[in-house]
Amino acid sequence: MRTLISEVSSLVGTDVTLCGWVHRIRDLGGVSFVVLRDRSGSVQLVFDAKPTVTLESVIQVTGSAARNEKAPGGIEVRVRTTEVLSAAEVDLPFPVNQDPAKMPLESILDNRMISLRNPQILSIFRVQSTILRCFAECLRAEGFSEIKTSKLIGTGTEGGTGLFQVEYFETKVYLTQSPQIYKQALIASGLERVFEIGPAYRAEKHDTPRHINEFTSLDVEMAFIKSEQDLMDLETRILAAIFRGIRETNQRELDAWKAAVPDPDLCTRIPRVSHDEAREIVTKETGHKVYEITPEGERTLCEWAMKTAGIEAVFVHGYPRKSRPFYTYPAENNRTRSFDLLFRGLEITSGSMRINRYDMLLENLKAFDLKPEGLADYLSIFRYGCPPHGGFAIGLERITQKILALASVKEATLFPRDRKRTRP
Amino acid sequence: MRTLISEVSSLVGTDVTLCGWVHRIRDLGGVSFVVLRDRSGSVQLVFDAKPTVTLESVIQVTGSAARNEKAPGGIEVRVRTTEVLSAAEVDLPFPVNQDPAKMPLESILDNRMISLRNPQILSIFRVQSTILRCFAECLRAEGFSEIKTSKLIGTGTEGGTGLFQVEYFETKVYLTQSPQIYKQALIASGLERVFEIGPAYRAEKHDTPRHINEFTSLDVEMAFIKSEQDLMDLETRILAAIFRGIRETNQRELDAWKAAVPDPDLCTRIPRVSHDEAREIVTKETGHKVYEITPEGERTLCEWAMKTAGIEAVFVHGYPRKSRPFYTYPAENNRTRSFDLLFRGLEITSGSMRINRYDMLLENLKAFDLKPEGLADYLSIFRYGCPPHGGFAIGLERITQKILALASVKEATLFPRDRKRTRP
Repeated sequence: MRTLISEVSSLVGTDVTLCGWVHRIRDLGGVSFVVLRDRSGSVQLVFDAKPTVTLESVIQVTGSAARNEKAPGGIEVRVRTTEVLSAAEVDLPFPVNQDPAKMPLESILDNRMISLRNPQILSIFRVQSTILRCFAECLRAEGFSEIKTSKLIGTGTEGGTGLFQVEYFETKVYLTQSPQIYKQALIASGLERVFEIGPAYRAEKHDTPRHINEFTSLDVEMAFIKSEQDLMDLETRILAAIFRGIRETNQRELDAWKAAVPDPDLCTRIPRVSHDEAREIVTKETGHKVYEITPEGERTLCEWAMKTAGIEAVFVHGYPRKSRPFYTYPAENNRTRSFDLLFRGLEITSGSMRINRYDMLLENLKAFDLKPEGLADYLSIFRYGCPPHGGFAIGLERITQKILALASVKEATLFPRDRKRTRP
Repeated sequence: MRTLISEVSSLVGTDVTLCGWVHRIRDLGGVSFVVLRDRSGSVQLVFDAKPTVTLESVIQVTGSAARNEKAPGGIEVRVRTTEVLSAAEVDLPFPVNQDPAKMPLESILDNRMISLRNPQILSIFRVQSTILRCFAECLRAEGFSEIKTSKLIGTGTEGGTGLFQVEYFETKVYLTQSPQIYKQALIASGLERVFEIGPAYRAEKHDTPRHINEFTSLDVEMAFIKSEQDLMDLETRILAAIFRGIRETNQRELDAWKAAVPDPDLCTRIPRVSHDEAREIVTKETGHKVYEITPEGERTLCEWAMKTAGIEAVFVHGYPRKSRPFYTYPAENNRTRSFDLLFRGLEITSGSMRINRYDMLLENLKAFDLKPEGLADYLSIFRYGCPPHGGFAIGLERITQKILALASVKEATLFPRDRKRTRP
């Protein structure tokens, strides 16, 4: 019967059987120390003679658990029998047991199959798993249904640019940039509240620490809202749930990255400023007049939020009409009922109240120089009765990146796809 | 303040404000009855004069909740004020308030944006949402982490056929048929237990009630198993969790489809028969000697399981080597450590113990006439220590179909993609 390494400390004085990976080997002549790693942690094994194992081999050992003040964690296992379940070759392409901060990102990603074994690198995805759980749990508790929609569409809702083309039997389709049209169809179908977790694609030639061409979109759509404020309220509750979940589940991972999540109770204090106010804040804070909110401006706004509200996040709403998609509900002065959430200097959410009236939508298509012909399926949602609604999407990799203070969003992506990277 | 329709019965004698869709209109001259539908149910509204509303319009009404034995559910709301939030045009392309059994599948799918409004059709996806929840909850409770891997790969693991090609900047990639290589990389990374819920693609020219070209794969992979029996044990617990969850959450939806889920406690009785035994059973039950298990044979096996174990499900294990992928762990007599789960006459799961030893994998590549060159990333998982492991995948749409006894898997897919269908 296998014991997890995390359970060994409560079994001192008894025999245990452990399974895991050989993380480190130290041979002191008469005695050898091996650090064994499993999904629950790591522990020092003591061998009387040097065992014939290589780094990263998977082994099963049986021995007695004992206290030893000098051992990491104060516990060690004195091994009597060893079985090699899978022997690793010696030419490891990535130093699994070294500090990943010393390794260039390209090497980490090129050797992804092996670099994921580094406990600190792997810990990123334990946190990500918690985010996925808390996002879904929070929404389900509020009556949301989970949906799974097609990632292949005939035409793009956001215009034809930025789409990856797929050869589909005798025709061509595109990878979806977001489940936008489907989310809207489903709130209008009567589900009213839906969320989807799925891949989304952007065929953009960016090569920055904040862009990837395939990402996981945490999508939300909600009917019968009064305004975009309801959406910011909902996202506030989601953020608090995620931060609370990570604090409860991932303290070890936060420690590994010397990271901290904001106090969940502070989420309700996240400032909400209009796009115009945001530009004034950036102008005032930097001393330079700004007309757009650049990535640098996003950082300034989050620093300002930290000073004024104690949390490095800010909702910016009321973006100009020309900078948002055609389905965004318009507001006065060529503004929109839209918002972004900036967190630790990065936009991690984009959302808005949507146009739900057919006539208004047709008007807006004209203003955006779009033709209704290609959008017949989409338009039918509104032609036959659609409640007031809105929604938003959180980038899974971006929120993971910012929670752990990672330099690049690619670090927070298991198998990132960028302009040049299509493997592993 | 909005009241959900499900709450009206506890508010008799008070004023309520409801929001929803006009499901049915019946004008009796002096008085009009309207059935209003929201996400929680439907209720009869009473108007003194015929309201100027059309079917499917979204309205908000205020009135007094009252008992009326003649009203459906014994409750009605006598309306005083009505606001039309979104008026529907009168040329509805699909009869939302009719029995969907009378509508051809092609019409349901062609008009998907509107046909989803039919409460019975929509109820399929409430059940699907429960399946998604229970699958994840069951696995998380057993220490599994949720992963999100790329759906774009340079080459296929299952050979080059059946892949959709994507134009990716200056190169070409393919849509993944399964997250197989990534699941294996992640159990070997040290997570040990992972699951993924995501889209999977098969570029096969099938056109049957059991095939779609894009489906949602509920994928599981688990390290340190002793044999494929551990995987069947795990799937048994997952199935019980799903059946239990649907019974607790979706009785209304089951009633709508006159469907029932098996008793969760019977899951442990699901027979496990070898492929050879399965052929004998089919031969005996049908009186015809069989050499392969055809779709008809799958139905026969499930009927046999119902007779012998009281549940319409059966695990078939030990498939011949030539019928399973190259990474399947071989067994004696050219058999494999693989299994399928057949449920109500349909294969809904395929799984196996995988080869975890590098040398054995290289041997098997040869036997399958595959070249190691294109699989360097995959092979590195095994070259550097990989625990014994295995996994399986459940088709979300197929299990939904079978739970509700739907004629086609396409009915259980929000926006199905088949050879000819790429919209909506």
